[in-house]
Amino acid sequence: MRTIRSVAGLRGALAESRKAGKRVGLVPTMGYLHDGHLSLVEASRRQCDVTVVSIFVNPTQFGPNEDLSTYPRNFLRDEELCRNAGVAILFAPEVNEVYPAHFETFVEPGELAKPLCGGFRRGHFRGVATVVCKLFNMVQADAAFFGQKDFQQCAIVRRMVTDLNLPIEIVILPTVREHDGLAMSSRNRYLGEEERRRALAINRALFAAADEFRSGMRDVQKLIAVAKQHLQPIDRLQYLELVDSETLKPAESPLRRSAALCVAGYVGPTRLIDNVIMESPVPLERDEE
Amino acid sequence: MRTIRSVAGLRGALAESRKAGKRVGLVPTMGYLHDGHLSLVEASRRQCDVTVVSIFVNPTQFGPNEDLSTYPRNFLRDEELCRNAGVAILFAPEVNEVYPAHFETFVEPGELAKPLCGGFRRGHFRGVATVVCKLFNMVQADAAFFGQKDFQQCAIVRRMVTDLNLPIEIVILPTVREHDGLAMSSRNRYLGEEERRRALAINRALFAAADEFRSGMRDVQKLIAVAKQHLQPIDRLQYLELVDSETLKPAESPLRRSAALCVAGYVGPTRLIDNVIMESPVPLERDEE
Repeated sequence: MRTIRSVAGLRGALAESRKAGKRVGLVPTMGYLHDGHLSLVEASRRQCDVTVVSIFVNPTQFGPNEDLSTYPRNFLRDEELCRNAGVAILFAPEVNEVYPAHFETFVEPGELAKPLCGGFRRGHFRGVATVVCKLFNMVQADAAFFGQKDFQQCAIVRRMVTDLNLPIEIVILPTVREHDGLAMSSRNRYLGEEERRRALAINRALFAAADEFRSGMRDVQKLIAVAKQHLQPIDRLQYLELVDSETLKPAESPLRRSAALCVAGYVGPTRLIDNVIMESPVPLERDEE
Repeated sequence: MRTIRSVAGLRGALAESRKAGKRVGLVPTMGYLHDGHLSLVEASRRQCDVTVVSIFVNPTQFGPNEDLSTYPRNFLRDEELCRNAGVAILFAPEVNEVYPAHFETFVEPGELAKPLCGGFRRGHFRGVATVVCKLFNMVQADAAFFGQKDFQQCAIVRRMVTDLNLPIEIVILPTVREHDGLAMSSRNRYLGEEERRRALAINRALFAAADEFRSGMRDVQKLIAVAKQHLQPIDRLQYLELVDSETLKPAESPLRRSAALCVAGYVGPTRLIDNVIMESPVPLERDEE
């Protein structure tokens, strides 16, 4: 595995593979890797010839009162995990390599960036879309791998790829969870022992609603109410919404299209998000793309 | 030459060339081609193996009170000109191929889009940056060719390429002029005979100032005053500014870095723009990129 810090170095390292027609997979991360990230690496290794993992804690997606400076980092451990996972290139640029002086062009997502986290994290998805677009172009990857835990991010990235005609395939993989159901997240390390226990309320709420959905419940308000019952242990619930999986607009009741129950809230000072997708085993009506 | 309407068709047509490692050049246009466009085609043919010309009158770069609906078009003539010029692929998508339903992701330029035309054409450069980014991605060109007449556009496109790490080289070619000096523009066809004569005031103003610059004049206000004397025949002057070529901020007096004298104004109902670059034959101090 090679660890590379510069865009020029990255392109140089990939030139041979590209010439040889090899398929390049990208797993963009902010580091502090966990099994969720590693499941993306595995998927990339299955589907591509060369896997690039990027580690970059992207300042433009953090708000002024967010946790940019304290975001957990452990580069040596990440490097070891990537090496053991069969990553070919670990791309870990410094901030000024990604955002040099005079940087001023952003990718601006639209309606998909407004609900859910978009209502609480102003500019977050502009920063996400911009850095993801940049990483795609730096790597010129054929495919990129994201986790469903960041549901809104996945929707925005897919829309960006379609809207800007980016020549890349987006692969979304299921959320990887701890043994007790908590969605894996680098931010879980912020949680104290008691907070860690309370955090389980989030996945319990989602699973309870998903169970009712599987048992036939299709009423949006009832499904939300089922989840809500479990969320007392959460300190500040930001949202609990059942949204259309494609448009992220409030799902219409009764559910007939794929929908996602999405939640965000604080446990102590730590903001957590999670979601479950509710879709019938029978194919659902979809918008034409 | 092949005329292609769809992105899928375009990518299919270019797949072989790309595999063979051929260099692809793109000349993005809004059609109604003139010798300025054809000089870009020539440059592309010299520097690339395959030349793609796109013709697309991009609605997102027109304001609500601008000339989208009347913008001159003559597709059969354009097609003939491209064929004779040795173009390999003429890409002419319909609006809904470029902006399908649910399109919502834009490329948003920054400070460079604010002065000059940016002050008069709200959203124009957002539309330009977005469609140019899309065209680059559709074609996956190795190089793209633009005319210096659209000076601010060139600056914004170059900045976008740097900022978003687009893997493409931008080549800017000198403005091509009519025998009497009027900058070639598809919009010149709007001009009546008497307006056509008055329009010459623009290039005369620029040339007069450029002559003084060549004779050693470096005072910004004096250079602007020289140009201004010639602009009486213009009906509504929007701006006459001497700006730093890189930042587009007002040039500092006395001139020591490359600067551009830029003008925009109406002749009758027709808006015209033009510019000259003022730089010493000795290399000028430049910002690090």
